[in-house]
Amino acid sequence: MSLKLTILGCHSATPRANAHPTSQYLEINNAHFIIDCGEGTQRQMRKYKVGFSKIDHIFISHLHGDHFFGLIGLISTYGILNREKDLHVYGPVGIKEITTLQLKFSKSHVRYKLIFHELSSKESEVILENDKVIVRTIPLTHRVYTNGYLFTEKHRLKNLHIDNIKQYDEIETCDYHNIKAGKDFVLSSGEVIPNSELTIPHPKAKSYAFCSDTIYKPDIVPIIKNASILYHEATFLKDREDLCEKTKHSTAEQAAIIAKDANVDKLIVGHYSSRYKNINAFKTEAETVFNNVELAVAGQTYGINILNETV
Amino acid sequence: MSLKLTILGCHSATPRANAHPTSQYLEINNAHFIIDCGEGTQRQMRKYKVGFSKIDHIFISHLHGDHFFGLIGLISTYGILNREKDLHVYGPVGIKEITTLQLKFSKSHVRYKLIFHELSSKESEVILENDKVIVRTIPLTHRVYTNGYLFTEKHRLKNLHIDNIKQYDEIETCDYHNIKAGKDFVLSSGEVIPNSELTIPHPKAKSYAFCSDTIYKPDIVPIIKNASILYHEATFLKDREDLCEKTKHSTAEQAAIIAKDANVDKLIVGHYSSRYKNINAFKTEAETVFNNVELAVAGQTYGINILNETV
Repeated sequence: MSLKLTILGCHSATPRANAHPTSQYLEINNAHFIIDCGEGTQRQMRKYKVGFSKIDHIFISHLHGDHFFGLIGLISTYGILNREKDLHVYGPVGIKEITTLQLKFSKSHVRYKLIFHELSSKESEVILENDKVIVRTIPLTHRVYTNGYLFTEKHRLKNLHIDNIKQYDEIETCDYHNIKAGKDFVLSSGEVIPNSELTIPHPKAKSYAFCSDTIYKPDIVPIIKNASILYHEATFLKDREDLCEKTKHSTAEQAAIIAKDANVDKLIVGHYSSRYKNINAFKTEAETVFNNVELAVAGQTYGINILNETV
Repeated sequence: MSLKLTILGCHSATPRANAHPTSQYLEINNAHFIIDCGEGTQRQMRKYKVGFSKIDHIFISHLHGDHFFGLIGLISTYGILNREKDLHVYGPVGIKEITTLQLKFSKSHVRYKLIFHELSSKESEVILENDKVIVRTIPLTHRVYTNGYLFTEKHRLKNLHIDNIKQYDEIETCDYHNIKAGKDFVLSSGEVIPNSELTIPHPKAKSYAFCSDTIYKPDIVPIIKNASILYHEATFLKDREDLCEKTKHSTAEQAAIIAKDANVDKLIVGHYSSRYKNINAFKTEAETVFNNVELAVAGQTYGINILNETV
């Protein structure tokens, strides 16, 4: 899989013995990310065997406790584990002050470099780009400043169209790398063979959109258009849609409308209010609008298989 | 029981799926306290059915994450649960700034009164006294400013010595309350019957001493002398006593020497380093010095039975 999401926690704030607040582990194109860090995230990472050392980037949606109270514990633990690599933390303004104050009082000066990327823009912006992935913010509307995040894989090398290549004796194996990288091929006659003739069009870049917490916000649709997987909060069912405006949360039906309008491949709903004892109703409600819905469950992994793609 | 201790977590900082950092729930003379609040404490309280609403006082030993990262979650949850009663938090200077900063950024202005008692004295001091209990600090020596806490029950009313009372026809049932409260009785002849003749001496006031984290510190012995139960950290066994000076922790043997010298009834050891896979060795080592040793285990309750005492 080049896109694999493991839910570490997916319930709203009220604590229960077996209802963990929001945290997710995302693997995309061999990059590894933690998204949100509710209290107990590091324990959930241990439980579900997420390698601590793989993580170099943590994304926090907003500064409500059920989305970030576990961050300081994870940061401290990296210190105890003698981490040396840089750790990047993306989140709203305040995340740096909160973290450094706690490190100061505990005299825990971590030896690794802790780099905060504090966000304040109300527009979608690219906040990370490397050879594996591009990460953009998805501005959401909640009771405090909140961003979702869109993770899109970057294709590194194209696949060769071997049948076409074989038409040209002049193209040798040593030329393949340049062709995979996107270059045209120039024959000795001077004729240019366009790269598009020698390679297979990329499959759609896989992408994952994380949208929590937010009120129903249709203007995110253009940003997350055609995403492979959308995680959208569904704190309530339609029966309590009246609570959405005050609490700035969504219903399962609203999550499904976003999924449908954005034409995503799969919708995962979570962040269930503790008032609902049976979460199956969230799936049922969303399926009235959109037909590929899964329920977020702690410890469960969701993915997209690799097809027609060079690994 | 008038003294009942439930371990919510008892391991040192390195996170593992089934090793929770320090937190304890103490019931003494019908008062209810949380001592230390490692990450995940509120979840452990739910798991072991500790009533959230019973708690009015939380005691934090020191500002290392494995002893306080769960405090902000618990405080926030009390807000979500619409707590109205005051909540008192005792701990080192800094605990108020850390908490209020996080509440500020999350816009979680709790409606109940949150009262911080920040400690900075290096001498033992009484920090809480009411009709049920007296709480004193136990100054400890660790890498940051740290206090243990000694909880001692207060006797409210004495028990009557009925056989002696029956000798005096003048003493009626309506006089019992004053005698239980400690008053002498004056006969119509003017003769004073001393209270000591009319009541049974109190059994020893039960007490609980919490000492974590600390290097071996014999000067705490006078403070915790004759305690009913002593919880003393034992991060290491003798085999790694060399680490104690640097990390400011104790061995199981050292915990037992403190227990023996203080003449406590029972020693509980905990705060085991993750390097030890089998914690039974902590009991074995401590028992070479002191004969009533128990191992702290999350979810387990330890107590002293009520004997010869009015409830």
